[in-house]
Amino acid sequence: MSTLRTKSRARDLGIPFQGKPGRYNAITDLEGVTVGHTTIIEGEGELIVGRGPVRTGVTAILPRGRVTDPVFSGWACLNGNGEMTGTTWVEESGFLSGPIMLTNTHSIGVVHDAVIEWMHHQRPLVGPHAGNPWSLPIVAETYDGHLNDINGFHVKKEHAFKAIETSSPGPVAEGNVGGGTGMICHQFKGGIGTSSRAVNIGRNKYLVGVLVQANYGLRPLLTIAGAPVGQEITDLMPEEHTTPTTQDEQGSIIEVVATDAPLLPHQLKRLARRAPLGIARVGGVGGNGSGDIFIAFSTANPETYSNVETTEVKMLPNELMNDLFLAIVQATEEAIVNALVAAETMTGINGNKVYAIPHDQLKSALKKYNRLT
Amino acid sequence: MSTLRTKSRARDLGIPFQGKPGRYNAITDLEGVTVGHTTIIEGEGELIVGRGPVRTGVTAILPRGRVTDPVFSGWACLNGNGEMTGTTWVEESGFLSGPIMLTNTHSIGVVHDAVIEWMHHQRPLVGPHAGNPWSLPIVAETYDGHLNDINGFHVKKEHAFKAIETSSPGPVAEGNVGGGTGMICHQFKGGIGTSSRAVNIGRNKYLVGVLVQANYGLRPLLTIAGAPVGQEITDLMPEEHTTPTTQDEQGSIIEVVATDAPLLPHQLKRLARRAPLGIARVGGVGGNGSGDIFIAFSTANPETYSNVETTEVKMLPNELMNDLFLAIVQATEEAIVNALVAAETMTGINGNKVYAIPHDQLKSALKKYNRLT
Amino acid sequence: MSTLRTKSRARDLGIPFQGKPGRYNAITDLEGVTVGHTTIIEGEGELIVGRGPVRTGVTAILPRGRVTDPVFSGWACLNGNGEMTGTTWVEESGFLSGPIMLTNTHSIGVVHDAVIEWMHHQRPLVGPHAGNPWSLPIVAETYDGHLNDINGFHVKKEHAFKAIETSSPGPVAEGNVGGGTGMICHQFKGGIGTSSRAVNIGRNKYLVGVLVQANYGLRPLLTIAGAPVGQEITDLMPEEHTTPTTQDEQGSIIEVVATDAPLLPHQLKRLARRAPLGIARVGGVGGNGSGDIFIAFSTANPETYSNVETTEVKMLPNELMNDLFLAIVQATEEAIVNALVAAETMTGINGNKVYAIPHDQLKSALKKYNRLT
Amino acid sequence: MSTLRTKSRARDLGIPFQGKPGRYNAITDLEGVTVGHTTIIEGEGELIVGRGPVRTGVTAILPRGRVTDPVFSGWACLNGNGEMTGTTWVEESGFLSGPIMLTNTHSIGVVHDAVIEWMHHQRPLVGPHAGNPWSLPIVAETYDGHLNDINGFHVKKEHAFKAIETSSPGPVAEGNVGGGTGMICHQFKGGIGTSSRAVNIGRNKYLVGVLVQANYGLRPLLTIAGAPVGQEITDLMPEEHTTPTTQDEQGSIIEVVATDAPLLPHQLKRLARRAPLGIARVGGVGGNGSGDIFIAFSTANPETYSNVETTEVKMLPNELMNDLFLAIVQATEEAIVNALVAAETMTGINGNKVYAIPHDQLKSALKKYNRLT
Repeated sequence: MSTLRTKSRARDLGIPFQGKPGRYNAITDLEGVTVGHTTIIEGEGELIVGRGPVRTGVTAILPRGRVTDPVFSGWACLNGNGEMTGTTWVEESGFLSGPIMLTNTHSIGVVHDAVIEWMHHQRPLVGPHAGNPWSLPIVAETYDGHLNDINGFHVKKEHAFKAIETSSPGPVAEGNVGGGTGMICHQFKGGIGTSSRAVNIGRNKYLVGVLVQANYGLRPLLTIAGAPVGQEITDLMPEEHTTPTTQDEQGSIIEVVATDAPLLPHQLKRLARRAPLGIARVGGVGGNGSGDIFIAFSTANPETYSNVETTEVKMLPNELMNDLFLAIVQATEEAIVNALVAAETMTGINGNKVYAIPHDQLKSALKKYNRLT
Repeated sequence: MSTLRTKSRARDLGIPFQGKPGRYNAITDLEGVTVGHTTIIEGEGELIVGRGPVRTGVTAILPRGRVTDPVFSGWACLNGNGEMTGTTWVEESGFLSGPIMLTNTHSIGVVHDAVIEWMHHQRPLVGPHAGNPWSLPIVAETYDGHLNDINGFHVKKEHAFKAIETSSPGPVAEGNVGGGTGMICHQFKGGIGTSSRAVNIGRNKYLVGVLVQANYGLRPLLTIAGAPVGQEITDLMPEEHTTPTTQDEQGSIIEVVATDAPLLPHQLKRLARRAPLGIARVGGVGGNGSGDIFIAFSTANPETYSNVETTEVKMLPNELMNDLFLAIVQATEEAIVNALVAAETMTGINGNKVYAIPHDQLKSALKKYNRLT
Repeated sequence: MSTLRTKSRARDLGIPFQGKPGRYNAITDLEGVTVGHTTIIEGEGELIVGRGPVRTGVTAILPRGRVTDPVFSGWACLNGNGEMTGTTWVEESGFLSGPIMLTNTHSIGVVHDAVIEWMHHQRPLVGPHAGNPWSLPIVAETYDGHLNDINGFHVKKEHAFKAIETSSPGPVAEGNVGGGTGMICHQFKGGIGTSSRAVNIGRNKYLVGVLVQANYGLRPLLTIAGAPVGQEITDLMPEEHTTPTTQDEQGSIIEVVATDAPLLPHQLKRLARRAPLGIARVGGVGGNGSGDIFIAFSTANPETYSNVETTEVKMLPNELMNDLFLAIVQATEEAIVNALVAAETMTGINGNKVYAIPHDQLKSALKKYNRLT
Repeated sequence: MSTLRTKSRARDLGIPFQGKPGRYNAITDLEGVTVGHTTIIEGEGELIVGRGPVRTGVTAILPRGRVTDPVFSGWACLNGNGEMTGTTWVEESGFLSGPIMLTNTHSIGVVHDAVIEWMHHQRPLVGPHAGNPWSLPIVAETYDGHLNDINGFHVKKEHAFKAIETSSPGPVAEGNVGGGTGMICHQFKGGIGTSSRAVNIGRNKYLVGVLVQANYGLRPLLTIAGAPVGQEITDLMPEEHTTPTTQDEQGSIIEVVATDAPLLPHQLKRLARRAPLGIARVGGVGGNGSGDIFIAFSTANPETYSNVETTEVKMLPNELMNDLFLAIVQATEEAIVNALVAAETMTGINGNKVYAIPHDQLKSALKKYNRLT
């Protein structure tokens, strides 16, 4: 995965996003952050639980790549109809160790097991940087049961290992890939999206990068760059057959936020708490069926973790955080739209079909509201 | 106060707000809810601490009018650079007793004292509905020190009593009134705004009403009905002289949310947590200097409070809350814009001047983006 | 499991616990609650990861037995170095569906998968009581890697199914059983313990039952009925060989709290937040390596969950909760001591040996402080 | 106040407290921390609201004395039937500015006003260490209405100023002083108590100091050094006449925690969350009527606050916090007992009388349980 994209991204369509992105306009603009996807697409036709069709996968985000040095972290939640394991220890300790994994709702367990096994082979067991002998992995999910045989448990440990091991810096594949493979967003095909913002604070330049697994939202509420796009494009609704309807929001959005600004854990929590403001711009309301969970980390302050001596850490003043707040709101908005723009029409279980947002209609809608550059 | 307004409201300008408001498009659409304002405007010219000029006031929202029967309640916060007293007991007990008071940052104390004195004379001291012999009032604030002699402590107990005693149902005065008198929003004159939404859930009709004291935000981010209004109207910036600048966001927004849907305390917290999504639509990012605090209550389930026996309460299922979530987002957006539209240009301490948003330029900006009905 | 115990319990030794227990002095005193254990003990000698020795298991607590009707729930945490999945949705919705599972730290994943599979076959997929088509299971853990080949992943789905399927009302096996098999408490052998209290509130009688998986604490702090037992019994310390030492606290305590008092979700959170007070009486301080997580539910208010209409629920007034608070503190203390008293000396990986608390020395210590009845 | 005490303290009676206190066994063992009390005792006989009798006061704790350099801070709550203003900003920013004030429940407002006025005259308004132009003071309370004319509003701004201005390092007066003047604890006379612990972590020596305003608890639950003292001393119950009874717990406990260990805000929250474990040792259960609120700060990391540049801060590793956790539990227990031991029998409104715990009976009770050294 993470192959060079040739697909257009939201920005290429002329959508007037605010702010200045980093080099790849991706979470991997953060030095050291790597992303890997394992995409699993097999079979078609009628659902036979355990036999498919399969439309799912795993995405891994590694805060410092293969290095196990923990990062400061904080998390937040808009609506909690979802799972992100490991958050209780992030809240308590302010640290996050190991990869952040995204998958489908019913594959949390196997990916959790896989991370424990992988971590067991990676980290130092003794010395000043050795942590506990146990792992409390971060694994999050959204529900892909409209397209995927989710009760068939098709994700295996190997898929998780592969997402971790193939993770890389540079451009990030978006749309129907990794954990986002079978996802639906505002009743168009959704999935993985990413974006970043570069901000100057005093004499320093910082980056904020986000990656979303977007699987939430209703069509009439879809808003892009302020334009009521979802009220303009009313056709191409999901075609469903034997499965429960998606009339009611049943989705979720998981967001991973990275920055190189030297934020303390409570400041990273502040950052994570702004993710909903970006979702709101696109038309999300945190529906009851939605698991909207956000985790932020800082790549600053390496080797801060110790079990033997006091360490020194840098802190960005609270008073200088406003540009970071704006950055995460902007990057969240663009990452969701990137997921929509990159995703392709998919047919899954029982012939259920979810359409990609049509780029031409999207541009027409934006033009109607004078929002095309 | 609460006199019949003849001023136009945001909706009258042709802004295409979503959703259907209640009768007054105000928090007072909720049966029993009363609102009262005390507005204090005195003097002009140079600031002499303790002598003015004064541009401040007090707003009181009474969940069941003069009746002291507690309501179920929950609260939430976007950015916590502010104060709302009494929230710890709301969080613990799920109940709110007495009025909710809004004032300036440095008048929290006197208004708190006033509510205790008022409550002492109101409530039953014995019997099944008697609560504790003490009060833990809800008093919230935003900062009006750019226009008001905030360190002069001009709000007195009597101002708080008057806001409570004159509170009434029906239309609610907006803009430069009550606690909102000296407030600034997106670098235009702000203040009090209100709005409501009527929703049908199954066979039942429910209302969600909100009231904001809007004092947050930067001009370039101001967005109305999706249009980047703040980037279109770049003149009429606040004129400041001897006081600290408002280049950096120093404001806040307090929001009171009322519904007659039978929500339990944890569900009211869910509702309060959606207020930021409405603020995000208007361009708020929860700046570091901002105290963005939200309290929600339900007028359903009267006489639920007891100290002697188990009571019966109605509960709306979580699964049916989505329309309420959408309603609060919509009503929040409209209430903020109502505050902007109703507020009038004000000159305060040291000749500092904050302009009202010009209605004609606002309409032009909306028209440019095809967002005028 | 849940066979009739013939072993003595803490109370039988003459320890002067406060309060009046229910019939079995167990969480199963709550009508409908069932408990099942799968205990896995295999091999001995040197640790070979994947081959053992194995000293672990799974415990299942079913709030309404095999019935899938959700219960009101709330959770709390003292120190978060641990995992309890599913808490984000409990916090948001106030409901808990399905069994609560306890196991070792590295078997969270497989048990999570197993519960999803089990739930998929149990619950209604349509109708007013159908929930989401996905599951967010509650699976909690403590670390047994001092005695158990924890990285060998010896817990399988079948072990989880068996704990669920064999769960039953009546007496509950304690000590080295189920999820508690390989646990250590105050440097004696720990494990599963349970206790209950009956309280009269007005004309009503309510029960509070707790079940702990006790794996925390240092010897010098062990306090029983106020007596500094851990300072009296200084021998019989864990014998360790090749594994990391247990000099520093590396344990945790998970507690499940059940009541038939009609508490709303926020009130159940209040109850859960008192569990640490019981732990404190026994000498716990919530050490950094400890995952001290508590979940409470009420068996009252059956069939409260709906997706189509408003339901009626009973609520115990906050003002009448004090006896419940005292009950959970007392029951927590006794449940931990029950775990200690029931556990038997165990030898695990690499010959590591953890001793049972010697009943005679315990009685002598209590007698020395005039705390034996 | 803060005059040299000649009264005996709990430790002098031979109670076997654990751990090693600092020089004064007081929160003032922390370099820079100063404490001041204003005690208001006037009149006797029948209550006439506004005329007395008065049994109340104000206590001020200044984290860095008269220096306005903010400190890192975190807070926690056991039962929230109480008020501590300013906590929302502590939670958000991780910083605490200005004094921490303790008073009675109905004097929160006036003391809040007083702190704003005092702060206005103290702090820098411009420069890298200037904060916001507003104040969000920390003012906490417990209820003294059984002895004091609490609705007479006898605390004035001057009383608050005096507590701040006379605050000093060194020994701290305990019992019926300052905010603790009219307080009741386990149905004996309560009030202010303090204690500290010195701990060695690696090569460093740290202090934890606490100060409580103790006004909670029922007699039968009173436990000292593990001995059931409250069940031994059953006489000397409060004598009450016309006011509501204290049969049900109506009190609270506020605790201020100071340390010189370099803890980050989220770590100070961890510390604060352990205060209930110390209260539990003395027999507290966090009753429904109780406001049990805890705030912790660190005197380490001076001049960390800035509005212009990134600062460097020291952090104690989470892995080394266990001795601090134990220290706060021990110091909390001793501070409460110090409050009891120092307090003297008081007669207040309507002749209501609350007895001091009799030292001889206390020693007898401890001796009975072999807990006297």
